[in-house]
Amino acid sequence: MAKEKLSIVKIGGNVIEDNDALNTFLEHFSKLEGNKILVHGGGKRATSVAAKLGIESKMVNGRRITDADTLEVITMVYGGLVNKNIVAKLQALSVESIGLTGADVNSIRSVKRPVKEVDFGFVGDVKSVAYQSIDKLIKAHFTPVFCAITHDGNGQLLNTNADTIASELAIGLSKLYEIELTYCFEKNGVLMSVDNDDSVIEYMDSGTYQGLKGNGVFHDGMLPKLENCFHALEQGVSRVFIGNPLIISNKEQKFTTLYL
Amino acid sequence: MAKEKLSIVKIGGNVIEDNDALNTFLEHFSKLEGNKILVHGGGKRATSVAAKLGIESKMVNGRRITDADTLEVITMVYGGLVNKNIVAKLQALSVESIGLTGADVNSIRSVKRPVKEVDFGFVGDVKSVAYQSIDKLIKAHFTPVFCAITHDGNGQLLNTNADTIASELAIGLSKLYEIELTYCFEKNGVLMSVDNDDSVIEYMDSGTYQGLKGNGVFHDGMLPKLENCFHALEQGVSRVFIGNPLIISNKEQKFTTLYL
Repeated sequence: MAKEKLSIVKIGGNVIEDNDALNTFLEHFSKLEGNKILVHGGGKRATSVAAKLGIESKMVNGRRITDADTLEVITMVYGGLVNKNIVAKLQALSVESIGLTGADVNSIRSVKRPVKEVDFGFVGDVKSVAYQSIDKLIKAHFTPVFCAITHDGNGQLLNTNADTIASELAIGLSKLYEIELTYCFEKNGVLMSVDNDDSVIEYMDSGTYQGLKGNGVFHDGMLPKLENCFHALEQGVSRVFIGNPLIISNKEQKFTTLYL
Repeated sequence: MAKEKLSIVKIGGNVIEDNDALNTFLEHFSKLEGNKILVHGGGKRATSVAAKLGIESKMVNGRRITDADTLEVITMVYGGLVNKNIVAKLQALSVESIGLTGADVNSIRSVKRPVKEVDFGFVGDVKSVAYQSIDKLIKAHFTPVFCAITHDGNGQLLNTNADTIASELAIGLSKLYEIELTYCFEKNGVLMSVDNDDSVIEYMDSGTYQGLKGNGVFHDGMLPKLENCFHALEQGVSRVFIGNPLIISNKEQKFTTLYL
């Protein structure tokens, strides 16, 4: 029997931080037909709240170190402020949304990242997705809205990359659904030249990806995103798209389609 | 056909703010059999975070004025920090909890309190409880954990008294369940003499309540709580208890039972 379709859309900081952009995106998201899940990052708001609270944001190789105080700020900003405002906005658009962390319905368990050269602190690497519990919410016609927080099953919340959450949800739920995973960000897609927004690579298979990666085409921020995408495709996700937030409703414009 | 039982337990700031007390309470709550819902207040944490962020807490007649900045803090602290940590702790105790505001699954709609003598700001008075949506979660064997935030259906979150949320949930869900509503707070029950923790009024009907109220027995904090309780009883809630957090598992000690 053919699986039902489920769209998983991930939005990043650029959409979260711009109220007009967020409202426009959510309007398009509300019109997306069928089963759907939204995953959001946190953006710079956590950094500014942390700064106001006198908590220094420590970065190593461009990644945030999550000490106990920083985890509290992330829980407040991602799990509370950003998540619940998105849920309220979606309700106003008649989407029966429900805001979740990985602790809710035990949906995403992770393990605290082992300390090697760097101690990232309270950062979690995803271990398992309770896709059957999430499916109960979908079957009840609720639209899950996930923020980038997971838990270890022993009472500890953990900060987890939102791109990874989107791909792990996609992989887990691909056992039940035909998944379409869309990463929305500030560019029109994966670019051949990072400064030229018209240089969108419209189709890229894993062979092409490896070749371009070898040639150093992709900058540091794009590499982990693409790794997540191909990992998802290898694990059973049907389609992965990367582009600006409007591609969820308008497939006329350029964007990147990834395939194995 | 006899209705199934549903326990609704409300805990206040005194439990939230003391980590050991919270852990002990949650352990008892986890052992409570059958369908259950937890409602929590926020406590002083919101005030301390607001102060650190340079937001002045304005009180009128002992009630907090919720301006836009204060609402953000409440959304962060109640909806994020407090709620999600409780959810993670309950998961560690094998309770399939799910953290909610009234915006999630459109569960509790409210209207912004009209400005009369005082403008309370973003404070919501409960208008409707979507008990059928909440019941979908209960039927899926999830345990809802509500914080004291509602929404107006037009995208606006609103700060709402946690005692009221507990009683309105109880009233709404009494259409489907036989409800046992328990208010846990720092005293052993409703007291005849506020300074004597042994002076627990063990049974109080609405006639006794009106008489004692007329004699000025109840202090300002207790009155709205008792109004909520009797309102709930009048609207179909089966039993209402008031006492310290341990009464949910130990009915040997003194506590107050209210009835019409």
